Amino acid sequence: MPLLENIRGPHDLKALTGEERTALAQEVREFLITAVARTGGHLGPNLGVVELSIALHRVFDSPADRILWDTGHQSYVHKLLTGRQDFSKLRGKGGLSGYPSRAESEHDVIENSHASTVLGWADGLAKANEIRGRTDHVVAVIGDGALTGGMAWEALNNIAAARDRPLIIVVNDNERSYAPTIGGLAGHLATLRTTDGYERFLAWGKDVLQRTPVVGQPLYGSLHGAKKGFKETFAPQGMFEDLGLKYVGPIDGHDMDAVEGALRRAKRFHGPVLVHCLTEKGRGYRPALEDEADRFHTVAAMDPLTCAPLIPSGGRSWTSVFGEEMVRIGAERPDVVALTAAMLDPVGLAGFAEVYPDRVWDVGIAEQHAAVSAAGLATGGLHPVVAVYATFLNRAFDQLLMDVALHRCGVTFVLDRAGVTGTDGPSHNGMWDMSVLQVVPGLRIAAPRDADQLRAQLREAIDVDDAPTVVRFPKESVGQPVPALARIGGMDVLCRGDDVLLVVAGVMAPVGLRAAGLLAERGIGCTVVDPRWVKPVDPELPALAARHRAVAVVEDNVRSAGVGAAIGQALRDAGVDLPLRTFGIPEAFLPHAKRGEVLADIGLTPAEIAGHIGAALARADARTATGEAAAKERDA
Amino acid sequence: MPLLENIRGPHDLKALTGEERTALAQEVREFLITAVARTGGHLGPNLGVVELSIALHRVFDSPADRILWDTGHQSYVHKLLTGRQDFSKLRGKGGLSGYPSRAESEHDVIENSHASTVLGWADGLAKANEIRGRTDHVVAVIGDGALTGGMAWEALNNIAAARDRPLIIVVNDNERSYAPTIGGLAGHLATLRTTDGYERFLAWGKDVLQRTPVVGQPLYGSLHGAKKGFKETFAPQGMFEDLGLKYVGPIDGHDMDAVEGALRRAKRFHGPVLVHCLTEKGRGYRPALEDEADRFHTVAAMDPLTCAPLIPSGGRSWTSVFGEEMVRIGAERPDVVALTAAMLDPVGLAGFAEVYPDRVWDVGIAEQHAAVSAAGLATGGLHPVVAVYATFLNRAFDQLLMDVALHRCGVTFVLDRAGVTGTDGPSHNGMWDMSVLQVVPGLRIAAPRDADQLRAQLREAIDVDDAPTVVRFPKESVGQPVPALARIGGMDVLCRGDDVLLVVAGVMAPVGLRAAGLLAERGIGCTVVDPRWVKPVDPELPALAARHRAVAVVEDNVRSAGVGAAIGQALRDAGVDLPLRTFGIPEAFLPHAKRGEVLADIGLTPAEIAGHIGAALARADARTATGEAAAKERDA
Repeated sequence: MPLLENIRGPHDLKALTGEERTALAQEVREFLITAVARTGGHLGPNLGVVELSIALHRVFDSPADRILWDTGHQSYVHKLLTGRQDFSKLRGKGGLSGYPSRAESEHDVIENSHASTVLGWADGLAKANEIRGRTDHVVAVIGDGALTGGMAWEALNNIAAARDRPLIIVVNDNERSYAPTIGGLAGHLATLRTTDGYERFLAWGKDVLQRTPVVGQPLYGSLHGAKKGFKETFAPQGMFEDLGLKYVGPIDGHDMDAVEGALRRAKRFHGPVLVHCLTEKGRGYRPALEDEADRFHTVAAMDPLTCAPLIPSGGRSWTSVFGEEMVRIGAERPDVVALTAAMLDPVGLAGFAEVYPDRVWDVGIAEQHAAVSAAGLATGGLHPVVAVYATFLNRAFDQLLMDVALHRCGVTFVLDRAGVTGTDGPSHNGMWDMSVLQVVPGLRIAAPRDADQLRAQLREAIDVDDAPTVVRFPKESVGQPVPALARIGGMDVLCRGDDVLLVVAGVMAPVGLRAAGLLAERGIGCTVVDPRWVKPVDPELPALAARHRAVAVVEDNVRSAGVGAAIGQALRDAGVDLPLRTFGIPEAFLPHAKRGEVLADIGLTPAEIAGHIGAALARADARTATGEAAAKERDA
Repeated sequence: MPLLENIRGPHDLKALTGEERTALAQEVREFLITAVARTGGHLGPNLGVVELSIALHRVFDSPADRILWDTGHQSYVHKLLTGRQDFSKLRGKGGLSGYPSRAESEHDVIENSHASTVLGWADGLAKANEIRGRTDHVVAVIGDGALTGGMAWEALNNIAAARDRPLIIVVNDNERSYAPTIGGLAGHLATLRTTDGYERFLAWGKDVLQRTPVVGQPLYGSLHGAKKGFKETFAPQGMFEDLGLKYVGPIDGHDMDAVEGALRRAKRFHGPVLVHCLTEKGRGYRPALEDEADRFHTVAAMDPLTCAPLIPSGGRSWTSVFGEEMVRIGAERPDVVALTAAMLDPVGLAGFAEVYPDRVWDVGIAEQHAAVSAAGLATGGLHPVVAVYATFLNRAFDQLLMDVALHRCGVTFVLDRAGVTGTDGPSHNGMWDMSVLQVVPGLRIAAPRDADQLRAQLREAIDVDDAPTVVRFPKESVGQPVPALARIGGMDVLCRGDDVLLVVAGVMAPVGLRAAGLLAERGIGCTVVDPRWVKPVDPELPALAARHRAVAVVEDNVRSAGVGAAIGQALRDAGVDLPLRTFGIPEAFLPHAKRGEVLADIGLTPAEIAGHIGAALARADARTATGEAAAKERDA
């Protein structure tokens, strides 16, 4: 790779000849395919932005000019061009992040993986430049899919409001979110893609009218002279110009000269301008192009030629258990419908969509709309299941509270990728739901511990027709069944003992059972209980707790305000003032690494949990002994 | 009011003559002015929709047809027409809600006061009709201001995706949110308002071209024949048609015939259609029309002739203390800028905007954009202050977490109307913030107890440049200063005692002090401490707690996962296993009533708090006595 390895930063790109740029693009593609096949990661999106990334770094001067990437999973080429070419531990502990990272490079700005944010960031940065008298450029790259998100609209409305504040929006239009982009906007982009808009009309008008013999003034001239009036009162070049954005495009995003030319024109424009760039997801890699589902959006480590996975799959996924049960439920309950925010397949709804195509909607990257339209569907007599990654539910918190819960709508939210997901880094962990949802009146949260429980609790959730329900499960493979010895209230007793009541939320059951085993070796008996529904706290829990000397809670959720806090309050409200210890994820953004590595780093292991519980009991015993001794002394 | 009092429901409207409709509209306006002046409430928005509401109920058949109101504060006319004419206790305990209410009427659907939701609800209801084979109509009324919210965009994109699913959107365009509507969309609506779009062009073309002598085929006919091609390739009627919505308008929203005609046309259209209706906020009431700030958006009880308030103002508002301090801070810190989501004046930023007009932005009803663009502003070297009602911050939770906090941006969120607000009902209470924000790493929350603390803590917050800060205060007037006896760590000690550590969050200080007084009468001594910053928990708090027999926390926030829960965790983590009792708002949606009535209803009063603390201590004493007796017996 003679060219790529000599690119230490954007300045090394400036003097490349046209041929060298083409060769560099080829090298970058080969690098991406080889490197990402080795570690896994986002492949299709990055193959689509090779030329665009090179052009951006040639036309603009990062980091003074800000090049901002929406969602961030398409920043690999940008990384390669800004001095980061060691992809050997991509997304692994200590390796490069799969997203931009300020710790990695001054060229990176937005780290998080939630879509549709870039225009808002750009608006803020452009305003800051204006206030501070700086003339640096702000360039935001956003996919057509991300434009379906409400944040993009809010930002466009603000950006367009300042006609003389420079800001460049590059729409990276590959006609896809994860899956093909949906909705009215997609239709409009398609129209723009296939027409040349106003210029084509002028050419057409000239042709038609000049062929029409006219007496008196030349009609074409008269029409042409009316061009300004036309444009303003009648003929905007589509909705972007209606809003007040200069529109440039469409541009072939793989034609480096065309892209650079458009970017240079945009750079000279003293106001907000949108460059419409057509790209091909998976460009230059046949297996990606042949994958109609998602064009190799993300791949696991694989052989780049055969695409065979390097590591055998770890067994059945939670997602597939959910997806299959949904198909069965769909047959029994014609009122059950499903919603996804641009991720039909990843959330497990592809099977349901195949059998009941009229009962599933992809709403775009629009979690707010998923939740609020679900409230409408429920009010209209259906039971919607909104399937979404746990981390993305935060986008719909207000709608869940104010639209679904306030109106007592029976809507089931299925949160995939709950808990620590790991390699996608801090913004992909689904570690907030069991905390922020605690405040929602009437809401019930199921944290199933195994496949049988997922199937059973999904049905229990869908049976609730007057309140929101949540079913959450992690990314990894579903493990072995964890049998129950008994049921108390709605809780499953997994193990019995006299000293400690150990409450395990869902998938933490095996960890809790192993911790109980370690404590048993030290003579401390644990009752391990899976509450199944972690909200509301089971009314039987305080009485069960009172039969022990201490209570501990283990959850794969941030400790702050989570299941442990809720159980603490339930115990206090019942007047059960036992020592309580809670084990969960610390209140921090977790760096990317494998899930197991993260759990070990944060101490969510049987050994650490057992150690802390043992120490707390020992302290309590010491205090009791001291208290009793003091009492005896006092009474002596 | 001979006509109005005979309107028992929408069916009574159907047979009215044109003159009767006009007379009815006049009666409704008189009723509104008189009734709302008596109780206070939303006036301007309702005066603007009198004719529209009558027309909607004449053209459609509610409740089978769903008439949906965005934000809901403009539903008073709808209430009058659907059998609710007793406005004597409007927004008061036991009286009519200031918003639609399902408990009040089968004609009401959406109860919450958060803007921009109606199109999402409508999309869900229309889909449900389709699935269930129903042909009832769904009509969504949305203001031009609410169209600036991202949810509206997400919904439009979905609605437009189904060209044959009927759904009627009425844009109630009064050129205002609370204040005048901002942004590119407002510009586009203005263009639509002042043109007749395509029809005007056709007329113009006919005129120009027919006056042009043409040899051969008539040119106008040729152009006219090309109409379809024109429309599709070049001449959409603005962005709504670009998206795939049929556009009807603009219509004079006070011309009943025009409105009814447009609605009937829309009703016949088998697909999504947008009726652009121009209305005047405050219509027919001169004092409202003369109020440039907000056209009497909300009024307090007043004399309808002089507009003099009936109840004297209760003193300085928290909002004004904040607003004045912002002006001072602005002078000292040129990097401090401010953001509002369409509520410049209500959140207290009008003064700042007057002095520093270039340093404040109204982003529209777009809390998401306020937060994410604030992250951009902070990254660009400024310190943004985002001033917003506490309840609306929920819209920006993901952005606060993923954009502001993850990127360690120094952004200060100022939450007005925190805690129980009361008369605006469940969706206006700002009772969730101190819970949902608990999970945000690095975030600090100030709950000032008086005006001095607000000024001081606002400055402390703005001094934090690497993390989000929050300053929250309530709606009511700022009370008397509450002096501190001492400071421990960052906490103010307000009162000393040996038995109970009573932690009061901000404005609950007086309530806590009175509870302490009641307990003192029973021989129980309380240390009352105001932590000032309720997150993170002060590191000195556990040691201070350990010098007492029990801990209690009082907060005007939902109990679940709030300050009490956070303190409980801090105590456990420090091994301080004392009895803890937490007092706050129950996990429920609170019905509308005055703030004091609500607090009394939920037991957040000195007497109730003191009673519970006394009982808990008595139980603990009994247990200790039993334990000591048992120990003596065992050792005997």
